[in-house]
Amino acid sequence: MPQRIGVLVVVGVGLIGGSFALALKRTGLVERIVGVDCTLSHLQHALQRGVVDEVTQDIRKAVAAADVVLLAVPVQQIEGVLGTLAEALNVHTIVSDVASTKGDVLDMFRHYMPEHLSRCVPAHPIAGSEMSGVHAASQHLFCNRHVVVTPLPETDSEAMDSIAALWRAAGAHVSMMSAAEHDAVFAVVSHLPHLLAFAYMDRVLSRPDAQRCLDFASTGFRDFTRIAGSSAEMWCDIVQTNREALLIELNAYQQRLTALIDVIEARNHDRLLQIFQQASAARGSWRL
Amino acid sequence: MPQRIGVLVVVGVGLIGGSFALALKRTGLVERIVGVDCTLSHLQHALQRGVVDEVTQDIRKAVAAADVVLLAVPVQQIEGVLGTLAEALNVHTIVSDVASTKGDVLDMFRHYMPEHLSRCVPAHPIAGSEMSGVHAASQHLFCNRHVVVTPLPETDSEAMDSIAALWRAAGAHVSMMSAAEHDAVFAVVSHLPHLLAFAYMDRVLSRPDAQRCLDFASTGFRDFTRIAGSSAEMWCDIVQTNREALLIELNAYQQRLTALIDVIEARNHDRLLQIFQQASAARGSWRL
Repeated sequence: MPQRIGVLVVVGVGLIGGSFALALKRTGLVERIVGVDCTLSHLQHALQRGVVDEVTQDIRKAVAAADVVLLAVPVQQIEGVLGTLAEALNVHTIVSDVASTKGDVLDMFRHYMPEHLSRCVPAHPIAGSEMSGVHAASQHLFCNRHVVVTPLPETDSEAMDSIAALWRAAGAHVSMMSAAEHDAVFAVVSHLPHLLAFAYMDRVLSRPDAQRCLDFASTGFRDFTRIAGSSAEMWCDIVQTNREALLIELNAYQQRLTALIDVIEARNHDRLLQIFQQASAARGSWRL
Repeated sequence: MPQRIGVLVVVGVGLIGGSFALALKRTGLVERIVGVDCTLSHLQHALQRGVVDEVTQDIRKAVAAADVVLLAVPVQQIEGVLGTLAEALNVHTIVSDVASTKGDVLDMFRHYMPEHLSRCVPAHPIAGSEMSGVHAASQHLFCNRHVVVTPLPETDSEAMDSIAALWRAAGAHVSMMSAAEHDAVFAVVSHLPHLLAFAYMDRVLSRPDAQRCLDFASTGFRDFTRIAGSSAEMWCDIVQTNREALLIELNAYQQRLTALIDVIEARNHDRLLQIFQQASAARGSWRL
């Protein structure tokens, strides 16, 4: 049984923050959960749904009494929040986050709370939904999903273990990586496919007969482009915060695509079949 | 009420041919449906399920008595089948097919039955399933799906109308295009996404840490790569039969992707947001 937490402050009571609070409430692992949000209606809704025990818009007051602070705001708001709360933190308070890129967040922790790094535990839950907001929060959102924790060299093991225990209690599998490995792996399996799907839609829309084409698109198109329907603002942020790893992946993809075009131009049927067979076999044996 | 057909011969009693037969049986539009297949067990299964009224492996005998012949074999077998049946055809018999590329099929019709072109009606039903074979056939497979008919200049309107009427009776929406337009449109909305997904899997597999990456792949990856699990043999055939249109699309995509990479390298946030917003809006308003 992991150690009980006194006060958990969730900054940003949306889909992720709200689901984390809901999942932990039923475990009894946290005595009191306080929700902080800049939008009052989010807080009222969270309170009505019983997602949190109390709410406030005074972030400094909230974190002053916190044992654990979870930053669950969009990545572009983390910097502002860190600037506000750094001074108010108690020395023992653990600070974690849920941002989907980690190198930039580590830099922000170093910049805004250089004296507090032993208690900083950057993390990334690999879960989401096409919906957002606290009304979409679910205590099951993290069940059997991965959470990647990317500790700093300064992070102490007790803080690390506390955050890992909370995520496990929420149903998740916890893995550890360096921030650099995290950002490289997610550039490959998440950020690159999104960029390729956006670029594909961009190509289709550039055609004079785009609408005619879209009229005849079917299930392959539907699934391949689903992620191109994602939030443009969120993906601009992700590109900016994981720019270097993503550029490496984009260029590597272009090289493989050029090689594939060469194979088709050369009518190298055997090599084409081999590429398709390997891809198809790997996709067929993959399971979420 | 469209004119009744005497004998329909379906060559290749698999998912598409079987579903076409099943859909037409319940309409009463066809007196008798004969299944032809080189695999005896397919025929036995089709007969047991009541998909066809009779079966034979003697294609020449079957087509000699046919009013309509539907070629529902894989595209690489069409040439062999046309070579076999051309001599046996009655002058009035309508010949149609279901291949997913059309330029090559038109060339085959011209080569194997130059005297019969007025009765040739190339067509492509935009429907399928991750399953194949007659056991997966369904009378509803074509309900509300597109069928694109790509007549030759020589095709007479009565043959064209007969095939269109059969597909409408099977529940489909029938559109007409030239073979060149068909191959260009499907290069855009179907063949290009498949090639991009295969190339993406090829890129992932080229990494030394491919398995580690795949372990952390999630729902975005799942949908984006679903089509990379398609049959390698079938997609080699499609690439070969629609090579020119597909190469045009691959190169056009490469150019848009390069432009996107330039935008990211230049940190042109406004342009990046614009590309993502247009893509996201277009995908959001698209409905299958």
